[in-house]
Amino acid sequence: MKAKVTIEQIATAAGVSSATVSRAINHPELVNSATRTLISTTMQEFKYEPPSTARRQSYGTSKGLIAIEIPWLDNPFYAEIIRGMQVAARSKGYDTCIIWSRLEQEGSDSLYNQLSYLGVSGILVVSPLDAQTLERLKSIAPVVQCCEFNPDSSVPYVSIDDFASAAKATEHLIACGCTSLGILRGPSSFKYARERYRAFKQVLEQNGIEIHPEWIRKIPDNSFGLAYAEACNLFASKHIPEGIFCCSDVFGAAVLGAAHKYHIMVPDDLMIIGFDNVSMSEMVTPPLTTVNQPRYRMGATACSMVIEQIKGKHSSGSVVLDTELIVRETTLARKSTRSE
Amino acid sequence: MKAKVTIEQIATAAGVSSATVSRAINHPELVNSATRTLISTTMQEFKYEPPSTARRQSYGTSKGLIAIEIPWLDNPFYAEIIRGMQVAARSKGYDTCIIWSRLEQEGSDSLYNQLSYLGVSGILVVSPLDAQTLERLKSIAPVVQCCEFNPDSSVPYVSIDDFASAAKATEHLIACGCTSLGILRGPSSFKYARERYRAFKQVLEQNGIEIHPEWIRKIPDNSFGLAYAEACNLFASKHIPEGIFCCSDVFGAAVLGAAHKYHIMVPDDLMIIGFDNVSMSEMVTPPLTTVNQPRYRMGATACSMVIEQIKGKHSSGSVVLDTELIVRETTLARKSTRSE
Repeated sequence: MKAKVTIEQIATAAGVSSATVSRAINHPELVNSATRTLISTTMQEFKYEPPSTARRQSYGTSKGLIAIEIPWLDNPFYAEIIRGMQVAARSKGYDTCIIWSRLEQEGSDSLYNQLSYLGVSGILVVSPLDAQTLERLKSIAPVVQCCEFNPDSSVPYVSIDDFASAAKATEHLIACGCTSLGILRGPSSFKYARERYRAFKQVLEQNGIEIHPEWIRKIPDNSFGLAYAEACNLFASKHIPEGIFCCSDVFGAAVLGAAHKYHIMVPDDLMIIGFDNVSMSEMVTPPLTTVNQPRYRMGATACSMVIEQIKGKHSSGSVVLDTELIVRETTLARKSTRSE
Repeated sequence: MKAKVTIEQIATAAGVSSATVSRAINHPELVNSATRTLISTTMQEFKYEPPSTARRQSYGTSKGLIAIEIPWLDNPFYAEIIRGMQVAARSKGYDTCIIWSRLEQEGSDSLYNQLSYLGVSGILVVSPLDAQTLERLKSIAPVVQCCEFNPDSSVPYVSIDDFASAAKATEHLIACGCTSLGILRGPSSFKYARERYRAFKQVLEQNGIEIHPEWIRKIPDNSFGLAYAEACNLFASKHIPEGIFCCSDVFGAAVLGAAHKYHIMVPDDLMIIGFDNVSMSEMVTPPLTTVNQPRYRMGATACSMVIEQIKGKHSSGSVVLDTELIVRETTLARKSTRSE
């Protein structure tokens, strides 16, 4: 059996690096003509045919590239949103690539430049962006916001009603018999965190429940470690609420871990509710009561919207999808008997 | 204060869609000349200056784009690897984009086409690819494999010694006093899963421990749900091993959840060890004993290697990084007294 000729063999025979051979094939304008001729002659001698030639032409089937911008890659919340976006894009003949924007380190200029450079047909943004940045991105290609959105911008969005959903979660804790409540708030640069906290406060006020400043803990980032540290600090004081509303399942898992460390029984001594219904919420022990966000559907809807715009249709406006309360084992009506 | 002119205003005034205005700015060759002139005139009337012009030129500072191919986005294992790749790329002036390849659905042609289309300078692959596909990718740009690698290919890699690391994990369970052992194996298309299983079997043989076929469970995908179902099936038989080696922390968390459901005490009645040291391994209760992979360093090393190749240097060969056993609360030497 005759071994297939490799790009290294060509490189070795021509006395250049493999990268130079690649460049000569893919970006001949970057290689000086003497080297190009040498490589070309060597390829002919070896009867090497670059695999790209035939294939590349068939790529005309792709209608273009849709960029998916996300703020954190290590937040389990985003995978299902991106999957929805990808499946919707693929079904309409578009490719996708994911940009982890790291806006806090890099700033929005870097995102803008990168998206310009990629030559994208559409842009899906998941980070909270200011109206001016959104406007700049629109000069590159049509944009749709997903999850987070800026109400001051004309860029359409797909999201949930964070206020109503968080109110439902807080009311569930009260309905389970909690008479004192705490909250692990999220980073206030995010709309979701601001709205969920606002709803929590309003429900407490409406129910005549006093808000202890000690039981309001602000976590600067959706981090298990930071939330765990805050929860331990709260539990160490021995003066703890009967229920804690966590602005994410990651926070919920952290509070559960800290409760275990302090021998606080969940749900008997403390009830916990998370938010998002990421897979981790089922993985912890006991499984977390949470609020489901239709993440796949949010992603797919946002992507369909951007494709409509790419096709030149006018935006048909923003979409707000419903959430659901999912009652698992970290909350329990106090008067019921416990079933195993 | 005068409001800033938006792209919609231009579109409305010119009687075209916003996408057409974007196209006229960014890809004038795609817009017919009458429309182009109309848009251009309208922009002048409104004194609208596309924000891109000035910025785009400054993007000459980017040395190019490095594509990061990953097999699953919903596997918490990858985030830290990608972060390492991104930080290394950025520090050398390169941008990155992430391609979720979905090879099982899409095949390697789709990956090849997409990478050709993007015009990347370097490629980092995390999925297991056949030698022919790797060779094809090399015709686009320099390639480095990370985590998974194909030993039949000349493409360099950064990985760990899965065999030695899994042997260490299995030996730890035996050292803790387990005299009977089970395993949750991973998908055998992945080198890591094959090697970890091979090590497990060899350590059992060397220690004269019989291998019960009932206690070897193969999970086709790194999925909590599938692993949970298999663990429940195993525990329902009432004939269970004293220790279970889980080929990932996701599997470890699933076994822990199933043990809780079947009232099996961990670590007293059952010891569990995971693999990867993803953040979830700390989030579960009790926290999982596991094997740490230096994921950030693996990603950063792979990226530095591909950049060396982009610069035309010859590959200095592959790198194997060390792992560490991290003993938490799901394993415990049986003879020691338990400390709180």
